[in-house]
Amino acid sequence: MLEHYFSTRKRTEDFCAPLSIEDYTPQVALHASPMKWQLGHTTWFFETFLLKPYLKEYKEFHPKFSFLFNSYYNNVGDRLARDSRGVLTRPSVEEVYQYRHYMDEHIEKLFGGNTTSEMNAIFEIGINHEEQHQELMITDLKLMFFRHPLKTTYKEDGNKLTGKVNHFNEWISISEGVYEIGHQGEGFAYDNELGRHKVYIHDFEIAKDYVSNDDFIAFIEDGGYERFDLWLDEGWAWVQQNDIKKPLYWEKEGEEWMQFTLGGMQKVEGKGILSHINFYEAEAFARWKGMRLPTEFEWEVASEQLNWGDRWEWTNSAYLPYPGFKTADGALGEYNGKFMINQMVLRGGSVATSPNHSRNTYRNFFHPHYCWQYTGIRLVKSK
Amino acid sequence: MLEHYFSTRKRTEDFCAPLSIEDYTPQVALHASPMKWQLGHTTWFFETFLLKPYLKEYKEFHPKFSFLFNSYYNNVGDRLARDSRGVLTRPSVEEVYQYRHYMDEHIEKLFGGNTTSEMNAIFEIGINHEEQHQELMITDLKLMFFRHPLKTTYKEDGNKLTGKVNHFNEWISISEGVYEIGHQGEGFAYDNELGRHKVYIHDFEIAKDYVSNDDFIAFIEDGGYERFDLWLDEGWAWVQQNDIKKPLYWEKEGEEWMQFTLGGMQKVEGKGILSHINFYEAEAFARWKGMRLPTEFEWEVASEQLNWGDRWEWTNSAYLPYPGFKTADGALGEYNGKFMINQMVLRGGSVATSPNHSRNTYRNFFHPHYCWQYTGIRLVKSK
Amino acid sequence: MLEHYFSTRKRTEDFCAPLSIEDYTPQVALHASPMKWQLGHTTWFFETFLLKPYLKEYKEFHPKFSFLFNSYYNNVGDRLARDSRGVLTRPSVEEVYQYRHYMDEHIEKLFGGNTTSEMNAIFEIGINHEEQHQELMITDLKLMFFRHPLKTTYKEDGNKLTGKVNHFNEWISISEGVYEIGHQGEGFAYDNELGRHKVYIHDFEIAKDYVSNDDFIAFIEDGGYERFDLWLDEGWAWVQQNDIKKPLYWEKEGEEWMQFTLGGMQKVEGKGILSHINFYEAEAFARWKGMRLPTEFEWEVASEQLNWGDRWEWTNSAYLPYPGFKTADGALGEYNGKFMINQMVLRGGSVATSPNHSRNTYRNFFHPHYCWQYTGIRLVKSK
Amino acid sequence: MLEHYFSTRKRTEDFCAPLSIEDYTPQVALHASPMKWQLGHTTWFFETFLLKPYLKEYKEFHPKFSFLFNSYYNNVGDRLARDSRGVLTRPSVEEVYQYRHYMDEHIEKLFGGNTTSEMNAIFEIGINHEEQHQELMITDLKLMFFRHPLKTTYKEDGNKLTGKVNHFNEWISISEGVYEIGHQGEGFAYDNELGRHKVYIHDFEIAKDYVSNDDFIAFIEDGGYERFDLWLDEGWAWVQQNDIKKPLYWEKEGEEWMQFTLGGMQKVEGKGILSHINFYEAEAFARWKGMRLPTEFEWEVASEQLNWGDRWEWTNSAYLPYPGFKTADGALGEYNGKFMINQMVLRGGSVATSPNHSRNTYRNFFHPHYCWQYTGIRLVKSK
Repeated sequence: MLEHYFSTRKRTEDFCAPLSIEDYTPQVALHASPMKWQLGHTTWFFETFLLKPYLKEYKEFHPKFSFLFNSYYNNVGDRLARDSRGVLTRPSVEEVYQYRHYMDEHIEKLFGGNTTSEMNAIFEIGINHEEQHQELMITDLKLMFFRHPLKTTYKEDGNKLTGKVNHFNEWISISEGVYEIGHQGEGFAYDNELGRHKVYIHDFEIAKDYVSNDDFIAFIEDGGYERFDLWLDEGWAWVQQNDIKKPLYWEKEGEEWMQFTLGGMQKVEGKGILSHINFYEAEAFARWKGMRLPTEFEWEVASEQLNWGDRWEWTNSAYLPYPGFKTADGALGEYNGKFMINQMVLRGGSVATSPNHSRNTYRNFFHPHYCWQYTGIRLVKSK
Repeated sequence: MLEHYFSTRKRTEDFCAPLSIEDYTPQVALHASPMKWQLGHTTWFFETFLLKPYLKEYKEFHPKFSFLFNSYYNNVGDRLARDSRGVLTRPSVEEVYQYRHYMDEHIEKLFGGNTTSEMNAIFEIGINHEEQHQELMITDLKLMFFRHPLKTTYKEDGNKLTGKVNHFNEWISISEGVYEIGHQGEGFAYDNELGRHKVYIHDFEIAKDYVSNDDFIAFIEDGGYERFDLWLDEGWAWVQQNDIKKPLYWEKEGEEWMQFTLGGMQKVEGKGILSHINFYEAEAFARWKGMRLPTEFEWEVASEQLNWGDRWEWTNSAYLPYPGFKTADGALGEYNGKFMINQMVLRGGSVATSPNHSRNTYRNFFHPHYCWQYTGIRLVKSK
Repeated sequence: MLEHYFSTRKRTEDFCAPLSIEDYTPQVALHASPMKWQLGHTTWFFETFLLKPYLKEYKEFHPKFSFLFNSYYNNVGDRLARDSRGVLTRPSVEEVYQYRHYMDEHIEKLFGGNTTSEMNAIFEIGINHEEQHQELMITDLKLMFFRHPLKTTYKEDGNKLTGKVNHFNEWISISEGVYEIGHQGEGFAYDNELGRHKVYIHDFEIAKDYVSNDDFIAFIEDGGYERFDLWLDEGWAWVQQNDIKKPLYWEKEGEEWMQFTLGGMQKVEGKGILSHINFYEAEAFARWKGMRLPTEFEWEVASEQLNWGDRWEWTNSAYLPYPGFKTADGALGEYNGKFMINQMVLRGGSVATSPNHSRNTYRNFFHPHYCWQYTGIRLVKSK
Repeated sequence: MLEHYFSTRKRTEDFCAPLSIEDYTPQVALHASPMKWQLGHTTWFFETFLLKPYLKEYKEFHPKFSFLFNSYYNNVGDRLARDSRGVLTRPSVEEVYQYRHYMDEHIEKLFGGNTTSEMNAIFEIGINHEEQHQELMITDLKLMFFRHPLKTTYKEDGNKLTGKVNHFNEWISISEGVYEIGHQGEGFAYDNELGRHKVYIHDFEIAKDYVSNDDFIAFIEDGGYERFDLWLDEGWAWVQQNDIKKPLYWEKEGEEWMQFTLGGMQKVEGKGILSHINFYEAEAFARWKGMRLPTEFEWEVASEQLNWGDRWEWTNSAYLPYPGFKTADGALGEYNGKFMINQMVLRGGSVATSPNHSRNTYRNFFHPHYCWQYTGIRLVKSK
């Protein structure tokens, strides 16, 4: 696991290689965080939940860093307001890297010795936590580069993270019955996936692959963004108040749809997988097709037959506890449970998801208006 | 049905008897509507969906009333903004009553003749729609009287709508298995209740009766509003941003808890049924008890053994479509379906609910922060 | 003076004759007040500053009316928030008239007996205060009728309050020198006009009459609302943020400019006096003409030779104290002095100003973005 | 003048010596600008108004810098929104210095050759413009370091910019009469100071020196921030809405008042000159003393007998044009004139003002609620 720790830590820092010092600091949206803060926060996680409680005579790196880098753990004490993460001119980028390496040394020390299963469990969460932030780093950087008045780029040969749809018009049928849902077995899972339990599913057909850019262009060209009857009431308000006419990152140049990527503006490939769609758009698109989104349970039951892993997929399931869900005691109990209201579940994983960080029981969740993740659509037909 | 129509119309107007002319106009909150507007809107519903399409040579009462009294039906055209319903100095109260009686005459004419099942179905929706508004009239008036700087009262001998808990510490056990959910049979039901379908339920115990005021006072006295660990993240933000320390309508006078009612300030009876609780408060209270709220499916399965009907009960189910749910074509398709996002289901019915307007498949829904309905708590223990 | 009191009180109530009960209550803008509130507030003024301190054994009409009808006098205690004046469903219109008549009886009693010069001075302020509110009642009602979704009218044969420009291109020359400014003599004046003092004025020429509608139409047609170089920075921001393209109350029907009046929509007469212009518009118009607005001192010095009284005229003087200005002690000291920041002085008087309420030393003042008064433009040329 | 240019440019860069790369980017308030932006903007000024129009074959440094570094000149074209100056991760600090040095080379080239009086006049404005920004850099950095959650410091031995009051209770009498106001003669002045003209002044006495910290502590201890009668209406709203109880940068540690400086927290010296006071506070303090603030004319007339130069002094004069003021043609006409509304004039100069940048006719101006400049109080007694 120590090896997994070090490779994860290295991967985080590799993401930063193309950045200038100034790129680390700004916060471009309330729901996005600066790189400097994320570098510090993922480190603070190990310090707070492992080194302070378990490493004897551990001396904290800086007395104020817990204030600066705590995200939302009320149990750990006061913290910088979420909308103020962009003020961190100090500590310097250099000092944040020192903080990281200080932690690496001490983690090595702690896990070089005797460990308990409790420590190991927290260690695993910490590594998974940093993997989650790796995806956020990519999406937050993309938003920052896009919002910059000069539309700067992350790197010239940037990973385009596009992907192609391979299976058109292939449908998988699932039969009515009781199915088991939720994680079981040995591997790591978050608390919100646990509690294997039964769910009754009705007959449905689910698309083998994602919706393509061409599919969505047809929706736009059919007036999809102008037809109130296709939208949830909140979705229609979102369209009108923000004058939405196309997906985030798309722009029309002449007759051609272009999209902003980490490598700059690129042509939208028709067979490419649609991305950066929010729940409202996904739901409206499905209605326009005369279909619907899957529930998270339908998705999980069908998952082995699906082509998945390039986009997080909006389900029509709200993020709610599984039967028997219990919040863990203490601060780590704040990791997942307290967000179980007004968010929708996403299943699968995306091209920006860290390797090995996705599984078919994973429950990702976001507010329905967010577009900045690599989110796409999979369709379902009720029989 | 014509009889049901007239008794419903009369009941609406009876509610207005204690009001002064000025009481009909103001809008005291975005989610509450003036009486004048509700009197007009419920009338507009019949005019728009029955008289205009089905009564030959029907002449509309006023060319602008459709603009004024349309609530949220995009299909019917432009409308007064929701936050502007309080500007309706004109038409006068008298003219709105003329509008009502004009409609009554024409409805009588229309339904005195030959009717179709389509017309009857819409007629039934219209009557149910007015019944729904009767409950809103009560709750909106209560809020208006409460917000008035002089805390005026609706009527001295006002219905206190309190109710008592009769069964303490009685629990009903339900066994694991597949159950059927949703409306079936002859009586009226909204489209969101239809589609009888199977759901898998796990073992649980549910309280026979509601949480009492004494129960909630214990929560307050134990610091319930100050302990972040009891609250959902959004709920805790709501508590802090609004400095919440007690339920809406409660005030402490000396050592005594008092509550605002339609008959003025009254003592909070310990054995009385807790009311005007939002989802966040309900969820926090349940957590404090080491229990949880029921899902809407659990509630429906257990409903015949419960003591219910005095409070709408928050469930831990998000308001989402049943399998096979299809929005109706045309404007009436906007009645329910487009609100299926970011709201929670309430089950049961309240002391303010119109007679015969509740049934055990009824799916009421509100945003989790609303307190102004007669909403209470029922607890569940997982086995 | 008692006669003046009663004629003023009657005039106020005469304004209300065309109103329905519902017209008395709503507040349509933060800077406008409901009629009911104004009827109460002008009455409260007499009760608070005369009856309570000077009439022995006076019993206040209602213990909460001081809370409801205090406008901004911190010395008098807590009060209803300015943005909440529209919630006053209660007291009823009838009760407010009872309040007025109760006050009238007691004022008659108080001033039927012996009076002191102090009492007389306050009485005079009270009458002038009600006269000021008469103008606000007209302008606030006009705004309310305009904002109503049905654009209702005050009365069919409504006073159009338009007026005509009689003197085109006539200029009055004033020579450089020291002039005296400020009120002196016997008649009533507010504290902000007192302190007759010397001001040095440079040569200037001032227009004998107002700017006409035709003048302003030429400005619009020359792109006046689209040329940033004509506007103060704040004015340009106001134009852009509110997408302003014409004066408040104007609308174009085909090729014809129309304006909303208390008698409904009327044609804009070319020779009519321009009205409802804010300071930004007045300043931009003057710049477009290659001229400027007068200072309040220039205006006062020239006033005897001007044609004035149909519009309040924006001056380019900020509302600041005259040399030696002293705020009165106690609550009436709050009448004028505390507003001497971020407002501009208007001189003259308007067609909506109460008779005898204007004089050439009168200093009216409003924020530069307000348009709802009968405000116009007079031009000045520097030599 | 070329020498003055280079010394000014160097002084700007000297200010940056203690900064880390990250310190250059964030914008901590709408009215404050990042260092990076100010470094670019002062350079853009020379490029836009001198090099582009006057240097043949000049090639602009970067095609987008005019968009990024234009502050408010509508004549020059589109620009980055004022509230977005903190997004400038790119260009890098290094690139901004290259931009500066590129300009220096070309300015040297331009002014090494033949020049016209027009070019010289613009050159002088450009240098003065950069001097103005030097003061803003100091005050904006101070605010940034203060707002940082760790209250970082600019430099350990930071200039404390405090200063002492030397003359207590000394008053200068000025006699009534006509005085001349405004700049005349050879030296540089902004357009808003020009137009030497006559003003009539009444007898007054003015303090030789500033108000001290001890003076203001007495105001606080007498409940100055809690007594509405001392404040302008807007000032009282500012106090209440922001819960103001002390000057910006002050904090009480035990019994001791401390203040934040560029060198960290320091004791408030009783004899030190009060600083960082806004107009509302200055006006309330003067009222509490039974005195008032000077007008800008009184200040100028008395200036030769005053001890001044450590604080900008709030006057009770609104920022308005002098008689005969004319906005210059073209973009430089936007420098001053368009701000002549809703701002108050400050006279004198402060410890943060660039050397040689103050004179007794200089008219500085800010909104009355701003505290972040080195602003103080001088009192006046009317006779």
